[in-house]
Amino acid sequence: MSVTIQTIRKAHERISPYIERTPLLRLAALDAHLGCRVYVKAECMQRTGAFKLRGALNKMLTLSKEQLAHGVVAASSGNHGRAVAWCARKLGTTAVIVMPRTAPDVKVRNIRALGAEVVLCDATERFEVAERMRAERGATMVPPYNDEDIMAGQGTAGIEIVEQCPSVDMVVSPVSGGGLLGGLSTAVKALAPDVRIYGAEPAALPRYSASLAAGHPVTVERHASLADALVSDTPGSLCFPQVQSHANGVVPVEDAQMLRGMKLLLLEGKVLAEPSACIGLGAVLQGAIPVSPEMKVCFLLSGGNVGLEQLDILK
Amino acid sequence: MSVTIQTIRKAHERISPYIERTPLLRLAALDAHLGCRVYVKAECMQRTGAFKLRGALNKMLTLSKEQLAHGVVAASSGNHGRAVAWCARKLGTTAVIVMPRTAPDVKVRNIRALGAEVVLCDATERFEVAERMRAERGATMVPPYNDEDIMAGQGTAGIEIVEQCPSVDMVVSPVSGGGLLGGLSTAVKALAPDVRIYGAEPAALPRYSASLAAGHPVTVERHASLADALVSDTPGSLCFPQVQSHANGVVPVEDAQMLRGMKLLLLEGKVLAEPSACIGLGAVLQGAIPVSPEMKVCFLLSGGNVGLEQLDILK
Repeated sequence: MSVTIQTIRKAHERISPYIERTPLLRLAALDAHLGCRVYVKAECMQRTGAFKLRGALNKMLTLSKEQLAHGVVAASSGNHGRAVAWCARKLGTTAVIVMPRTAPDVKVRNIRALGAEVVLCDATERFEVAERMRAERGATMVPPYNDEDIMAGQGTAGIEIVEQCPSVDMVVSPVSGGGLLGGLSTAVKALAPDVRIYGAEPAALPRYSASLAAGHPVTVERHASLADALVSDTPGSLCFPQVQSHANGVVPVEDAQMLRGMKLLLLEGKVLAEPSACIGLGAVLQGAIPVSPEMKVCFLLSGGNVGLEQLDILK
Repeated sequence: MSVTIQTIRKAHERISPYIERTPLLRLAALDAHLGCRVYVKAECMQRTGAFKLRGALNKMLTLSKEQLAHGVVAASSGNHGRAVAWCARKLGTTAVIVMPRTAPDVKVRNIRALGAEVVLCDATERFEVAERMRAERGATMVPPYNDEDIMAGQGTAGIEIVEQCPSVDMVVSPVSGGGLLGGLSTAVKALAPDVRIYGAEPAALPRYSASLAAGHPVTVERHASLADALVSDTPGSLCFPQVQSHANGVVPVEDAQMLRGMKLLLLEGKVLAEPSACIGLGAVLQGAIPVSPEMKVCFLLSGGNVGLEQLDILK
């Protein structure tokens, strides 16, 4: 089995009763700044504050009663963890979320508020710690990206984009491990083959740029970035082939451009999204993706889990 | 002539080529906080950042070439001024905007950026100063609210609300002089007579609560409020009868509740609106308007002209 438009459609049917069909907004106030017609798919307005609920639900709705009875474990930079915690509560089970110590406070707080147990560790050891906890408890792992059910779930946002804006010319999405971009690019290219689709990733962690150049997944050196939701140093082994086949490219983006995008989105577009979610806007501001004034470009805003105190970085 | 659904429909036809049909968003993340099903009409995403463009356009599109040649003058707390400045530029004329010294910097900057001349004065003398400048220059006054074309223009938001959310049960709007609430309540009651419509005003300047109780427009004592867009101390003489006939009531709201609404809207709803725009959310948070969990309540977010530095008041 691999991720196809059929598995993504099936996922959409499965999760639709639980998710928000988030709005696709036309933000004309940003056109002059970005040099194209700006649209956003506002997954920052998704339940739990991020697109991650799509994948987590698609995975967890297929678990057996017995599996659910033993709880779930997830390694996450925050947004996947909140989604898994939400699903665990909804489905009457328990969740342990393993997070990097560098995750913003607001993300830790939101997960604890859903009743999940949070374990903090170094970003590099989060999968190892999660696997140990899973084994100890006989629980089920809900992977953040490297899983076909997860990828199919994230791809459902692509079905909605094409339905909500059929004349879209380009889609730009953040990328980390590649669960979102893998699913999204598969869905968009199946439904609208002429639409171009790009990923944007931190220049400090260019795992997809490097891997696409190499032709296979490579691990990049870990450098600090303000993109706290985009911390993978290696593409997911199942995600990479989907991205390689369907995306038109992935571009590295400087933190400063990402923050410029976040500020424009907030003050001119009136939409709050977290720094990582604005990296696609940053890619166009940086000139890394060629656009033109008549082109309809839809930016997927991956999440909105940002605290008031974090807005000071925009000043 | 008075303001009717016919004049509002005519206004809608006239201004539609120039305005955004702003989104009506379902913000389920706010339901538990407000105790109802939350919808917002996001006029904070309107061109020039506020609903005021609707009225200003409806007025200025009917001026003769000769009138336009002599320029326009407007007294404004900021948002009407920005709208008039935008129209002046669009229609190739000049604008003088008379503003209270207490207006936020961002509002003054945005108006100057459109090429208009800004004159600062005390809030109490703004109409007097504007009238003097109008007479000196032989210009045309574009009133902020007490005018039937202005009111009809603002009412066009009501047509859109009923079209975008036909099953809405209640509409809640900020009110100051009454141009918006006068037009809005006229439109909504004509199209959907069962929908309840409320105004929300600063407890520090309860001009409508006092006037509705008295049965005629009264002037209230001027007290300071953070609702910088809601500074009228008296209902407009033409607005008051419309509000009296069509609105179900107007409630005074404390600044603290308005800011609570603004913070919820931003952090949970992911939408940025200025303090005054959030006074309707504050009214429900304060318990001043009775709602219930199944009720669909649409909050008109009147504007989004707020600077990053102003967000510190939410901390």
